[in-house]
Amino acid sequence: MITRKGQATRDRIVVAAAGLMYQQGVAGTSAEDLQAAAGVSASQIYHYFGDKHALTCAVIKHWSDTIVGFHEPLLARLDDIDALRSWADVIVETARANDFRGGCPLGSLANELADCDEVARDDVVVGYRRWRGAIRDGLFAMKIRGALIEGADVDRLALALLTALQGGLLVSKALRDAEPLSTGLHTTIDHIASFATPDTA
Amino acid sequence: MITRKGQATRDRIVVAAAGLMYQQGVAGTSAEDLQAAAGVSASQIYHYFGDKHALTCAVIKHWSDTIVGFHEPLLARLDDIDALRSWADVIVETARANDFRGGCPLGSLANELADCDEVARDDVVVGYRRWRGAIRDGLFAMKIRGALIEGADVDRLALALLTALQGGLLVSKALRDAEPLSTGLHTTIDHIASFATPDTA
Repeated sequence: MITRKGQATRDRIVVAAAGLMYQQGVAGTSAEDLQAAAGVSASQIYHYFGDKHALTCAVIKHWSDTIVGFHEPLLARLDDIDALRSWADVIVETARANDFRGGCPLGSLANELADCDEVARDDVVVGYRRWRGAIRDGLFAMKIRGALIEGADVDRLALALLTALQGGLLVSKALRDAEPLSTGLHTTIDHIASFATPDTA
Repeated sequence: MITRKGQATRDRIVVAAAGLMYQQGVAGTSAEDLQAAAGVSASQIYHYFGDKHALTCAVIKHWSDTIVGFHEPLLARLDDIDALRSWADVIVETARANDFRGGCPLGSLANELADCDEVARDDVVVGYRRWRGAIRDGLFAMKIRGALIEGADVDRLALALLTALQGGLLVSKALRDAEPLSTGLHTTIDHIASFATPDTA
């Protein structure tokens, strides 16, 4: 059993590691950086995580929870194509507020770890599945509300939105410009609009 | 003036560095790795590049040339939506041949360097511009050939394809599966097909 105080220390380490790994990459995050950022000792980090690998997996889960927690309430309210465009605009404005730096935390971890750490890759896959699921549930809710026609393949459209979002965040990070992210998302939504029911399009 | 032999040595260093940085990242590529892979001495690397930063920029240019050199001949032949789908399938099959590992060399460099190296970021931006330009030229050729209607915004559609491609390569790398890349590209092409002239759709 972990005590309440122990849980708070563990959480503080994960949040500090998540910030550092997002800014500097996993390889670029040292034990010393983390001790300073979290205000903990090396032995505390060892006590809760054993090694960097276990900590990295906790960080992937942290970012997956954060991302799904951000998107789910926005996506649950979708009732027409305009609402979907508003969701895209929230994503663009959130990225703009950070001057398009950083890109996607999950995407950056995926890029760094997918080919060299199978356990971390499994955790990234879980994160992407949950994110795709949240988008699909939003599109499915639109269908239930009569905004999308019966033939709309919400699984496929959700994956297309996720890939546009991942590519858009990456290219916008490189160009430090909204256009790739906005164009990627809104072009996919233009396509989704072709499945809108006539009275809601 | 660099001699022909000097140019060959320089090229060998760039190709070896490009392979290592693609597999291990820039931070994960040591001088020792590079000396072993290229069969050169530390002083030869210093002679041609001075520091790792100059070499990294040469690697970004190498990958931009390689990518544009791969896509341009494929895109120059586009004459209808089916040809565009064949281009997408070549991309998917090329990624599959590598078991979806690695993702996009330019995207991986963008992810690692965009926030910490302004000169490298500029070179990545040039690479993305050339790539987007090659896709736009392909779509523009389709328009000239009468396969796309006058109202098709080929600049915007090219950027949407580039973001779908970048996101698709990243998510397919994470999932080690063709579906994200294939779905991202073909969904964008489904949208482009809505601009096809009636007799070519």
